Amino acid sequence: MTTITTATTGVRLTAAVDVPESFVAEYVDVYKHLHAHPELSAQEFETATYIESRLAGLGIETFRCGTTGVVGVLKNGAGPVVGFRADTDGLPIAEQTGLDYSSEATGTLPDGGTAPVMHGCGHDTHITAALALASLLTERRDLWQGTLVLIFQPGEETAYGARAMVDDGLWDRAPKPEVVLAQHVMPVGHGKLIVRDGHMTSLADSWKITVHGQQAHGSQPEKSIDPIVAAAAMVMRLQTIVSRELAPTTPAVVTVGTFHAGLKENIIPGSAEFTVNVRTPDEGTRATVLAAIKRIVSAEAAASAAPEPSIEELNNFPRCFNDPAATRRVVDAFTADFGAAALTDAPLGMGSEDAGWLSDAIGVPGVFWAFGAFDPELFEDGAAPAGNHSPFFAPDARAAVVGGTGAALSGVLAFLGRN
Amino acid sequence: MTTITTATTGVRLTAAVDVPESFVAEYVDVYKHLHAHPELSAQEFETATYIESRLAGLGIETFRCGTTGVVGVLKNGAGPVVGFRADTDGLPIAEQTGLDYSSEATGTLPDGGTAPVMHGCGHDTHITAALALASLLTERRDLWQGTLVLIFQPGEETAYGARAMVDDGLWDRAPKPEVVLAQHVMPVGHGKLIVRDGHMTSLADSWKITVHGQQAHGSQPEKSIDPIVAAAAMVMRLQTIVSRELAPTTPAVVTVGTFHAGLKENIIPGSAEFTVNVRTPDEGTRATVLAAIKRIVSAEAAASAAPEPSIEELNNFPRCFNDPAATRRVVDAFTADFGAAALTDAPLGMGSEDAGWLSDAIGVPGVFWAFGAFDPELFEDGAAPAGNHSPFFAPDARAAVVGGTGAALSGVLAFLGRN
Amino acid sequence: MTTITTATTGVRLTAAVDVPESFVAEYVDVYKHLHAHPELSAQEFETATYIESRLAGLGIETFRCGTTGVVGVLKNGAGPVVGFRADTDGLPIAEQTGLDYSSEATGTLPDGGTAPVMHGCGHDTHITAALALASLLTERRDLWQGTLVLIFQPGEETAYGARAMVDDGLWDRAPKPEVVLAQHVMPVGHGKLIVRDGHMTSLADSWKITVHGQQAHGSQPEKSIDPIVAAAAMVMRLQTIVSRELAPTTPAVVTVGTFHAGLKENIIPGSAEFTVNVRTPDEGTRATVLAAIKRIVSAEAAASAAPEPSIEELNNFPRCFNDPAATRRVVDAFTADFGAAALTDAPLGMGSEDAGWLSDAIGVPGVFWAFGAFDPELFEDGAAPAGNHSPFFAPDARAAVVGGTGAALSGVLAFLGRN
Amino acid sequence: MTTITTATTGVRLTAAVDVPESFVAEYVDVYKHLHAHPELSAQEFETATYIESRLAGLGIETFRCGTTGVVGVLKNGAGPVVGFRADTDGLPIAEQTGLDYSSEATGTLPDGGTAPVMHGCGHDTHITAALALASLLTERRDLWQGTLVLIFQPGEETAYGARAMVDDGLWDRAPKPEVVLAQHVMPVGHGKLIVRDGHMTSLADSWKITVHGQQAHGSQPEKSIDPIVAAAAMVMRLQTIVSRELAPTTPAVVTVGTFHAGLKENIIPGSAEFTVNVRTPDEGTRATVLAAIKRIVSAEAAASAAPEPSIEELNNFPRCFNDPAATRRVVDAFTADFGAAALTDAPLGMGSEDAGWLSDAIGVPGVFWAFGAFDPELFEDGAAPAGNHSPFFAPDARAAVVGGTGAALSGVLAFLGRN
Repeated sequence: MTTITTATTGVRLTAAVDVPESFVAEYVDVYKHLHAHPELSAQEFETATYIESRLAGLGIETFRCGTTGVVGVLKNGAGPVVGFRADTDGLPIAEQTGLDYSSEATGTLPDGGTAPVMHGCGHDTHITAALALASLLTERRDLWQGTLVLIFQPGEETAYGARAMVDDGLWDRAPKPEVVLAQHVMPVGHGKLIVRDGHMTSLADSWKITVHGQQAHGSQPEKSIDPIVAAAAMVMRLQTIVSRELAPTTPAVVTVGTFHAGLKENIIPGSAEFTVNVRTPDEGTRATVLAAIKRIVSAEAAASAAPEPSIEELNNFPRCFNDPAATRRVVDAFTADFGAAALTDAPLGMGSEDAGWLSDAIGVPGVFWAFGAFDPELFEDGAAPAGNHSPFFAPDARAAVVGGTGAALSGVLAFLGRN
Repeated sequence: MTTITTATTGVRLTAAVDVPESFVAEYVDVYKHLHAHPELSAQEFETATYIESRLAGLGIETFRCGTTGVVGVLKNGAGPVVGFRADTDGLPIAEQTGLDYSSEATGTLPDGGTAPVMHGCGHDTHITAALALASLLTERRDLWQGTLVLIFQPGEETAYGARAMVDDGLWDRAPKPEVVLAQHVMPVGHGKLIVRDGHMTSLADSWKITVHGQQAHGSQPEKSIDPIVAAAAMVMRLQTIVSRELAPTTPAVVTVGTFHAGLKENIIPGSAEFTVNVRTPDEGTRATVLAAIKRIVSAEAAASAAPEPSIEELNNFPRCFNDPAATRRVVDAFTADFGAAALTDAPLGMGSEDAGWLSDAIGVPGVFWAFGAFDPELFEDGAAPAGNHSPFFAPDARAAVVGGTGAALSGVLAFLGRN
Repeated sequence: MTTITTATTGVRLTAAVDVPESFVAEYVDVYKHLHAHPELSAQEFETATYIESRLAGLGIETFRCGTTGVVGVLKNGAGPVVGFRADTDGLPIAEQTGLDYSSEATGTLPDGGTAPVMHGCGHDTHITAALALASLLTERRDLWQGTLVLIFQPGEETAYGARAMVDDGLWDRAPKPEVVLAQHVMPVGHGKLIVRDGHMTSLADSWKITVHGQQAHGSQPEKSIDPIVAAAAMVMRLQTIVSRELAPTTPAVVTVGTFHAGLKENIIPGSAEFTVNVRTPDEGTRATVLAAIKRIVSAEAAASAAPEPSIEELNNFPRCFNDPAATRRVVDAFTADFGAAALTDAPLGMGSEDAGWLSDAIGVPGVFWAFGAFDPELFEDGAAPAGNHSPFFAPDARAAVVGGTGAALSGVLAFLGRN
Repeated sequence: MTTITTATTGVRLTAAVDVPESFVAEYVDVYKHLHAHPELSAQEFETATYIESRLAGLGIETFRCGTTGVVGVLKNGAGPVVGFRADTDGLPIAEQTGLDYSSEATGTLPDGGTAPVMHGCGHDTHITAALALASLLTERRDLWQGTLVLIFQPGEETAYGARAMVDDGLWDRAPKPEVVLAQHVMPVGHGKLIVRDGHMTSLADSWKITVHGQQAHGSQPEKSIDPIVAAAAMVMRLQTIVSRELAPTTPAVVTVGTFHAGLKENIIPGSAEFTVNVRTPDEGTRATVLAAIKRIVSAEAAASAAPEPSIEELNNFPRCFNDPAATRRVVDAFTADFGAAALTDAPLGMGSEDAGWLSDAIGVPGVFWAFGAFDPELFEDGAAPAGNHSPFFAPDARAAVVGGTGAALSGVLAFLGRN
């Protein structure tokens, strides 16, 4: 992989702002440290401490919010208040990038088991960019005025963090913003940006289904109600929601992400558990799909003469809706800073995101955008690097720092810029 | 539940042998102790120590064999050598009998996890009967002559114990027998016995199948090869082996006992694992079924464009074949001791058993029988108590001691009896 | 294929009765004629006319019963009355035996379509043997006394013929018998006979299931309820009745024999129809399986949000129970006529048969046996010829005549024989 | 249902052209006649004769092309040549609209069976509008100049008609056009039009899959290879192409439209046939989906130990690509004639269309648009009338005439108009 380089002595973050090479190098190190030390959702204790330490080094006051969330407030005279959010959690994935700063971390799963952990969704780039932004804005007070609320949010992957921070008094304890911004790294080329108004990500719902069967010796199926067969039939039938119940033009996903049943090969277990993750483009489709899941799960249990299965909501991602007027300001800033060609309308896929709640909860606009951090050569001839949540997901470290910090700076200055 | 009682002052074990009530009470206590302290296959350390201690108390010399197996040798002058085997392991089942001597034990699974343990197959009755037999024959040397090799075998449930003891030199270290006997408690009434020549139990094979997919974010199925869907399709298709590929009159079972895949609901995992447990009546059917499993698993992976799945043999149970001539001697003894009506031809179902290897390995005859230990009232009007491997499996303690010891005594004296 | 030959000038039918070669040749011709002219159930008009013509040629009076059934009554003085039944219908199978007397016949299906027809179950051998028996007993009145009621029954394959004849007054119009006999050709060697008391064949039930969906253009699944997907899911789930809901030792079959839906590839049809054929060994299992089918079909429709499917009974085969005392007389006769070695306990499989109703309807005993008509060489080394209902089913013509007539004669004389 | 009415004495077809009420009434009668007399694809003989008769009545010369296709050529001095296509075939659907001009027609299916026929896709409106257009342009020669080639094309539903006419020398026998136009009625409101450049409809492919099993008696599954179970497994697995192998944002459909197997419930048939209809947005997705179908069908046969299934292409619909420049002219004409509000971007769904071949075959531009012919009230509150291919599909007769003729006139004059 070719790493991103710039020919100038200074490194250009935006049209108006260069930073010295040493600045980039410092945050590449920050990035590699974070990448090597990921933590699972709700367990971001070391990460929070690290962020607090870095912000303290910049002289920025912080407070904890939502247990492992960190909020830092930068004030620079009168002016608007803007929130900028970076999410901080990793994923239970065994990293296979082969990078020399690969993660070897492990974490504890909800069921008590142990799992490898990886920043497989790139939240490490988000933290890094937010820290670099904080550093830059601390130093370059000439560029802006007003108040920036930096929100280091835990638990995005499990859709609990934004709610947890709001519920823990985020907007009572920090100045109330007029807009909340957030960004995400995506597998597009370095320098590319994706932003549009309306829904940026899918609604997402996750459910745990417990199929109740009847345990018996493996040799006596007639004394059992086999929950593995019932759950397998459910998995097969759930495929028909997307294939038969939705219009082909309706983008939706029904994924069974986990399936666990049984302790011993010669015992038909008493129950089986699986989880379903659903992505839908709007509330109407969401209602249709969730009703179909309930209907199928219930009917397949009946087909097995099994009791009604238990359904438990694990999480649901709210909408991530880009306010048109606020988005226009961001688009204008991006265009001015990076050129119109930087903005791509590459599809965002079916990802989900709880950042929208930070603004929706208090009825102010939100804007969410994506930035690229991959060598453009990787995309030649229709190829593409491994995407988010892949064990091979590997943004270029330098591109992540330069691209992430540049986009953050441009977006924030769209609201707080002096002039 | 009515407990089994006898009207005599002494308790009748066989037509010829009574024991005092205190003898029964002692072994009921032994049984309850064992029931409350089950251990998983290959972990029967406490059980082995307990057995050694009891045998030492009777003055019987023992040696360890197969790590957690215990062998005790009783000699009583010249005469034949007979092996008598009791298996000692429990199962990863959470006991739900509500008995006041219920197990609260836990054990470690092969994958490192923790599981509740229960003597859900009744091996505690086998140990108890063997210990009671040892006590009785130690005291009543008038009844017999020759040598009795008591084999307390671990790991029957995982089909490794008989092989492990033979491989650890069982028949080099103990006198070589002319016949090996074994017994099993079954959900039939107290006093009932099941024995016939030929195949007593099914052949059993267990395989672990690993389906190799391709991991991706839950919202991007097109970047994945979904191993849960592939494995679910395999589970459904495996049903057709019994329903479509075997003659209706061929008794066979294909059970998927475990299914595990995925750590997080929004990640399509890279692989799925499930185990298949197969029961077949003979080698021909065994070959047919195992070939069909391989064919189906391979084809369903191909249907998913997934790589060839991995198949690993977990265990296989050999035949448990009752030698006709030796069986005749046991049947005659049972008839003399308990009356012809005690022998029932209730089907043994599709259970499996590795006891046969203890005799097959050295080319001598083996006889395996089953005894009942349940209140006969439980079987009235076509009802039946919970069977082996159920969390509710609960032999009557007293019936287990009386029935198990009586059957053991009668069977052993069929070969060692002093006319 | 080696044809069956006898070294004697006469041909031995039973221990006591030889016939000239010309007799055998005549009925081989009858057999080949019948084989080449099969008719579907309820359409046996030509067959009935042919039978009437042959019986008229023997001077036997006949009457029609059940539209295409023919009854002939032979009287030979005082003595018992015995019924002997031959079934007369063919099957919608395209014969592929390559025999020079192969069927090229076609018939009309219930839905109005046209199908090839074949005597694929061997009923042509039954008719032939009954006609030959009639000829023999007409000529050899010295052998017997009493009354023989020859019942040429239509519609065995669809389980309606026995009921139709009884309902049409069979036993009011013919002398009431003390026993009713019937026989069937099976793929066992020439000279072999199968008879035992108790249930000779399975109970059988056939149902037609209509899945009601909602029609839509093939490109708009979201406007449809796809009945083909629902019915396919039902087919897959029905496999689990045998694989999971019955004990492995319970011989039962659930076959989906037809599946029809849709007229055009780009229209999702409004409904799908399939038929289920069920074989069970006893009334208890029958009830279990039929309830499971109803449960699964109903639940899978619910999983599709489809209305409750329609279930229509197509036919059900009653028991075919061999009365022990009457069977004993047949076994004794067979042993005397063909030797004990001729009686084989080869399994009868899961076939069904409505002959039992002819006796059950009037509360008299029935006996049903099977005879072989294949070259014994076909069975060497574990091989076997194509079985009943195969397009390759091809009894040896001569063996069918000799074996079928001999067995019929022996069985009838067991009750009507003159000392 | 409210019928469409106009307040003027004349009826407005376009901004510039009114027709008398009697003109509309005449073509409403033509429409009802055609609706009541639909014919299946390749059987449009009566329809062709009717069209020829109407055109002859207008003095337009015609020739037959592609057996049941009719071509009429109108010349009006020098000027461009434009093709205008109307498709003429009906569908095997049993009409359930309850209209007093409902179809009671039947037709012969490819397999020889008989089916009800309905103009369930609205081709009757296309024929009617083309005939009305011919009448109007014959009379109003002041409006236009050049040559109009009217193409009444058979067999659109089976994707053979456009190719058949081209192969039969359409463009050798008629003047070669500079653009080919075509239109389709859709379930949108009267007065609405849908047109855009690029792909207007999906690529469509239809395949017939024959699953080869092994026939056996229904009671002997072990002697069969059950093709119904194999095909049902294929149907279930085919659902996963859309649900798991394509991006959620890729609109594609895989429909199994027919499934036929078996003649008799107690015979496991030797084969099963089903048809798959595939809609894809582009050639890349088409290749992916067709490869997946082949892979799944082949693998599921292997899972059943069945031979490789046979796959036969039934038809494939080419692209229907709207040339941007030519489309711009149509959009401008529509806007001028009906107002910008008439143009809706309602999704066209996943329909397919072979009209594109008429222009692609000779490398000239094509434009295809849709017009509405339903009472707008039917769409209030999110409701919608039954769509194309539904047995309830019922365009308003008057709206079909007015809307279809108006759109045709506007579109044709975009190229031939005498401004």
